[in-house]
Amino acid sequence: MQTHQTKAYGAETSGSLLKPLTISRREPAPHDIEIEILYCGVCHSDLHMARNEWHNTVFPIVPGHEIVGRVINAGQHVKKFGKGDMVAVGCMVDSCRTCPHCTEGLEQYCDLGKTLTYNSPDTHLGAHTLGGYSERIVVDEHFVLRVPDNLDPAAAAPLLCAGVTTWSPLRHWRVGPGQKVGVVGIGGLGHMGIKLAKALGAHVVVFTTSASKFDDAKRLGGDEVVLSTDIHEMKKHRNTLNFILDCVSAEHPINDYMSLLTTDGTLVLVGAPEKPMPVSAFSLIPGRRSLAGSNIGGIRETQEMLDFCGEHNLVADIELIGIQDINNAYERLVKGDVQYRFVIDMASLKV
Amino acid sequence: MQTHQTKAYGAETSGSLLKPLTISRREPAPHDIEIEILYCGVCHSDLHMARNEWHNTVFPIVPGHEIVGRVINAGQHVKKFGKGDMVAVGCMVDSCRTCPHCTEGLEQYCDLGKTLTYNSPDTHLGAHTLGGYSERIVVDEHFVLRVPDNLDPAAAAPLLCAGVTTWSPLRHWRVGPGQKVGVVGIGGLGHMGIKLAKALGAHVVVFTTSASKFDDAKRLGGDEVVLSTDIHEMKKHRNTLNFILDCVSAEHPINDYMSLLTTDGTLVLVGAPEKPMPVSAFSLIPGRRSLAGSNIGGIRETQEMLDFCGEHNLVADIELIGIQDINNAYERLVKGDVQYRFVIDMASLKV
Repeated sequence: MQTHQTKAYGAETSGSLLKPLTISRREPAPHDIEIEILYCGVCHSDLHMARNEWHNTVFPIVPGHEIVGRVINAGQHVKKFGKGDMVAVGCMVDSCRTCPHCTEGLEQYCDLGKTLTYNSPDTHLGAHTLGGYSERIVVDEHFVLRVPDNLDPAAAAPLLCAGVTTWSPLRHWRVGPGQKVGVVGIGGLGHMGIKLAKALGAHVVVFTTSASKFDDAKRLGGDEVVLSTDIHEMKKHRNTLNFILDCVSAEHPINDYMSLLTTDGTLVLVGAPEKPMPVSAFSLIPGRRSLAGSNIGGIRETQEMLDFCGEHNLVADIELIGIQDINNAYERLVKGDVQYRFVIDMASLKV
Repeated sequence: MQTHQTKAYGAETSGSLLKPLTISRREPAPHDIEIEILYCGVCHSDLHMARNEWHNTVFPIVPGHEIVGRVINAGQHVKKFGKGDMVAVGCMVDSCRTCPHCTEGLEQYCDLGKTLTYNSPDTHLGAHTLGGYSERIVVDEHFVLRVPDNLDPAAAAPLLCAGVTTWSPLRHWRVGPGQKVGVVGIGGLGHMGIKLAKALGAHVVVFTTSASKFDDAKRLGGDEVVLSTDIHEMKKHRNTLNFILDCVSAEHPINDYMSLLTTDGTLVLVGAPEKPMPVSAFSLIPGRRSLAGSNIGGIRETQEMLDFCGEHNLVADIELIGIQDINNAYERLVKGDVQYRFVIDMASLKV
């Protein structure tokens, strides 16, 4: 298979900083689209993977799965896009496309395993996929999304992971008007969860451990803000929330949050605490409550989310950085020091 | 309020054995039914409560909430039942009847708190409610169920708790033909779970730690039986079960069971392990799985379950005992030495 070289930024070992690399991209096949990457969001997973914190990284790694750019080349059978279109790529670049989940539009739950945008086996070139911290990427049109014209393309980039990861459970559990919805944690995921739940018509209650985030929580769309370390304030919300979107990856008192749910309420984890959480049966049984998880989102619902964001003029709150700042950005990310997503201006890679 | 005396069996303190007591029952009010109790099942909760193992028992306690008997007296406004009818009473004898859950037929989730058949505040006589280990009971007709004529009344008694506790989640999560359903644990609850899931048309996979229960698991309706301590056998069922009914109250490896669920599968706890269970976020997120709980069942669904059992000729597997054997039965219950429910022949109380 023919390839061409492109500039990228990545890590060669688990202990090393990210630095300039030269990588290969395939020449577009008939259904492929070649994209000049303009912006790439920085997801916390990028950091975990670059540092091999989940113990499954294959090096060299080029992270990045919140990609926005322009079509510069399209294979002969491509129908959905043309040159110059503003498009996006999220966490997946392929899946089996024939299993029940794929045909239902839930490629993230593909029976044969989805192909992630980085660090998955690359069926075209061998080795493994390389992500969006790069000049260009070649992706099958099925996994390419259209970005609404009215959205700032830099601030739209985080919609591709943080956006759809919160959108998918909000839609699956039918969050909407008349419901009281909790969002736990105001970070990359949480700040999008607040915006989307509010735009879907829910009454949004934001839970944070930082009183300093109160004003921001309201600005983002929170109808109420609760300091989760205040037992008295927490108690006031017992049995009142129809749904909770839990965006926290650190250890946190899960049973306290479960007790806030109404009968038949569901708490969905989109953040993944490393250690098992001690869940009491008595948090679940008396109110027929559910504790669930949700993983990114399918291609159809990603487009649906982008279109919804276009209609509601919704994007992420971002800090735009040059690729040369990525290692510093990772350090700040570890400290939670970002409001609320770093996005790399990929023009910086050309310098 | 006028009362009359009736014989009962109960415990006067947390350390004492159950013994004969004389208790008061109210004279039937206009909507009340007086029942001569013929049979009363022995639920594990009876033992926990009699021994104050949940630290909330009020003494003296008369346990028993799997009650079958005949109507011997009916208040002037009673419409549903007449003298001589074979009827039943389960875990609840009252609720607010006006909150959204009560009006929906989900009295077990009453916003103001249901009145349990024993050890709840008694709004009629003051003090607390006294259960079915007694000659007679007086209950509002709304909380009285009709027992199908074709069912053995002794073996029907456990349907009132073990039956509806397993029925309610099977129905709520729409278990039926074409589904693979796991039942974990073969005890009072589990043996009913197997029978009901099978009768609802599901393919039933039974999980047990005892190879000695294999034959029984199949006799009860299991299509497959898995020794849950055999890691190799457990692995074969990964990602295959649409629903799991978890009837185990002892500690057990919950993440191993979660991994058996398909995408969007749900594991429902009806047994309540005392200690919190360590639940991994990675058991929930990759397959959008849910861990839920379910508490007994409402009055409407209890009648639905009894009618279903009538149509399918389903009852519990029981060991009939005299009330004088109750303390010994409790000892055997602690050891799990019962197939699968003790039922007290209340005629023994008249001796």
